[in-house]
Amino acid sequence: MVEIKALGDHVGNEVTVHGWVEATRGHGKVAFTVVRDGTGVVQGVLVKSAVDEAVWECQQSLTQESLAALTGTVKADDRAPGGYELSLTGVEALAPAEEYPIQPKEHGVDFLLDHRHLWLRSSLQRAGLRVRAEVEQSIHDFLYTNDFVRVDTPILTGAIGEHAGTLFETDYFGDSAYMAQTGQLYVEAACPAFRRVYCFGPTFRAEKSKTRRHLTEFWMVEPEVAFADSNQNMELQEQLVSYIVERALERCSEELKVLERDTSKLENVKPSFPRMSYTEAIAFLQAKGSEIEWGKDLGAADEAVLMEDRDLPLFVHDYPKTAKAFYMKENPDDPRTVLCDDLLAPEGYGEIIGGSQREDDHDRLRARIHEESLPEEAYAWYLDLRKYGTFPHSGFGLGIERTVAWITGRHHIREMIPFPRLMNRLYP
Amino acid sequence: MVEIKALGDHVGNEVTVHGWVEATRGHGKVAFTVVRDGTGVVQGVLVKSAVDEAVWECQQSLTQESLAALTGTVKADDRAPGGYELSLTGVEALAPAEEYPIQPKEHGVDFLLDHRHLWLRSSLQRAGLRVRAEVEQSIHDFLYTNDFVRVDTPILTGAIGEHAGTLFETDYFGDSAYMAQTGQLYVEAACPAFRRVYCFGPTFRAEKSKTRRHLTEFWMVEPEVAFADSNQNMELQEQLVSYIVERALERCSEELKVLERDTSKLENVKPSFPRMSYTEAIAFLQAKGSEIEWGKDLGAADEAVLMEDRDLPLFVHDYPKTAKAFYMKENPDDPRTVLCDDLLAPEGYGEIIGGSQREDDHDRLRARIHEESLPEEAYAWYLDLRKYGTFPHSGFGLGIERTVAWITGRHHIREMIPFPRLMNRLYP
Repeated sequence: MVEIKALGDHVGNEVTVHGWVEATRGHGKVAFTVVRDGTGVVQGVLVKSAVDEAVWECQQSLTQESLAALTGTVKADDRAPGGYELSLTGVEALAPAEEYPIQPKEHGVDFLLDHRHLWLRSSLQRAGLRVRAEVEQSIHDFLYTNDFVRVDTPILTGAIGEHAGTLFETDYFGDSAYMAQTGQLYVEAACPAFRRVYCFGPTFRAEKSKTRRHLTEFWMVEPEVAFADSNQNMELQEQLVSYIVERALERCSEELKVLERDTSKLENVKPSFPRMSYTEAIAFLQAKGSEIEWGKDLGAADEAVLMEDRDLPLFVHDYPKTAKAFYMKENPDDPRTVLCDDLLAPEGYGEIIGGSQREDDHDRLRARIHEESLPEEAYAWYLDLRKYGTFPHSGFGLGIERTVAWITGRHHIREMIPFPRLMNRLYP
Repeated sequence: MVEIKALGDHVGNEVTVHGWVEATRGHGKVAFTVVRDGTGVVQGVLVKSAVDEAVWECQQSLTQESLAALTGTVKADDRAPGGYELSLTGVEALAPAEEYPIQPKEHGVDFLLDHRHLWLRSSLQRAGLRVRAEVEQSIHDFLYTNDFVRVDTPILTGAIGEHAGTLFETDYFGDSAYMAQTGQLYVEAACPAFRRVYCFGPTFRAEKSKTRRHLTEFWMVEPEVAFADSNQNMELQEQLVSYIVERALERCSEELKVLERDTSKLENVKPSFPRMSYTEAIAFLQAKGSEIEWGKDLGAADEAVLMEDRDLPLFVHDYPKTAKAFYMKENPDDPRTVLCDDLLAPEGYGEIIGGSQREDDHDRLRARIHEESLPEEAYAWYLDLRKYGTFPHSGFGLGIERTVAWITGRHHIREMIPFPRLMNRLYP
């Protein structure tokens, strides 16, 4: 068995390929069979007069997504996808498929999500998920090369996280455990060991949101750097994001073509990215006619106005304390605000990163925990980090699905994860 | 601020290093301060007669794990760890630490686990977790280089997994969701899209085990390959394991030294690894006096006997069907057994991999689901994979913590994960 991606090594020779039938067509004398083997797609051409009747009949009987063995001579053909074609001498149905539920027509999204285990095979989904895999590897490579130590943080935790009220809870041998909304607090603990650390994994929010930008289970990378301030934190973010985009352009050009992505919009994504303070953003929005008031969080509509006519991502920094999480460091220049940033992607993709310098003053952090009515005993270890050689540090969380949606130009983040979990969806 | 790992670029110059105080000592005239900044460890030498009284007093007041700024001239010194030393001219206590709970003495393991957020800073823990991070990156690199596509599988699932009865359950907007024990079934669905796939992430077992080899939350990598049989599956396993070991030896030599690992035991870990069928293993054990009977799973004591005098990991393959999971393919040569393997590590580390060829016959798989009293509706999508172009495929799961324990030579896998989750431990 030869893999389709290796056909170029066998031009002029007879080979056998095993793959799933994507399409068949033909007329009375010539039949075409397109198969996919996971490494590529190739078309086999069968001339009726050149083969036994049984071979022809076998080809005619092939149903969509049947597993077939195609035997034939490899021919270079510039018009063929992948550059090669097979002149068939043999066709075998290794595993015939029942009538395939996903047809080359418009299906409703619920139908497709019900069949996600099969929908993965289709070309747009394959392209999107391949970009995801490349983005993930590029993140690991960037951080590894820059001396970050990966630190896997727990999913099962005590009552600790971003927002009480959106936690999934499970019985833990008689106690209650909660599924982590972030690994950040834990990576902070590893900074005094390794200076630059990150976690990479699934996070959970029991949010009753049904927007195209929400999942109950999504993946994040969360780097954290000892001695970095908010400014250095933004520099790291723009370097990482630029690297990810560059790698995707370089190594996923075929996939981006399948996705019909206008890559010219990505080619300028290089440091540095423009920055605007939250206060400046409010003034800008108000000048544009918005009724938003200082102190409110920005909504999707506000973000859209801010991003009009922009090619590059935009940092909005130093939000009001009341709009952000308890662990962010108070801004010494304006104590109504905290030293934080959101990174907004262009083209309507919105926030892909949230970052901040962390509060490193023990008493101030403890007061914030109380203000937010969080259970201090669950945060005792986190407060400890401010007792034993507290240190300035900053970090951020980049959402994988949102970032991949932007890079691929796809509308819904639910297509950017192999098995999306939504409020009403736990299957397959 | 200069990073300790970069001191070699500054020999003869005065620099300032920020770091956490690991130790101080000295006598009336000279004082030594060892600090760690996450990139390395360096000793500063302070001569009382050479500095102001205030500088001396500051050094004398430094407590363990205080954050300090040391200013001094970089001197090359072969005897120093890292090869450099600082002749101090200035010492500043940036963040004094309260009395540090972890002292240079023997602490009970519960005490250390209660303080895991601080214990991470100690040299053995740093070394072990750095090896873990290297192992993880090496796994991603090996699979990426070998054309595997990463496919992130869901944590929140319907009633599906390895063993009912050891599932963590959570309310999911009125339904029940279960935390995944494996991503395998989901990666199988991605094979027809990408041929070679893998998932990498946390998995969960609500097992009431308290052994040194169990965690309730542990990480696995699970590769899956379309068209691979059980034999090719074992070949992939020995290639991956050999690569991991080679990378650790090559890039973590300092850490393995700190851990006092006898690396000569790892140097021969290269393909191929010996193989023994389960049936052969039973005969071997019985000849050694064991009372084990054919059909029973191997226990830790049996594994120890099998591994006596072995340097290389050992494959034990083709276990009895009754001892293994429902999805393993029946062995055509002996239908009492399934086409599977466990990979046992030497030196008492036991099973680090479980793998198998998967049952690809729809009716046989469905019968196994019924035999095991599993809910067929939850597995409907999994059965679908056998309806639409079913294909031979094989895969395995490698446990990260067990593998790192073996490579580092540490006894307990709970030290091989940053924040271990045990039956009685959910904190910090």
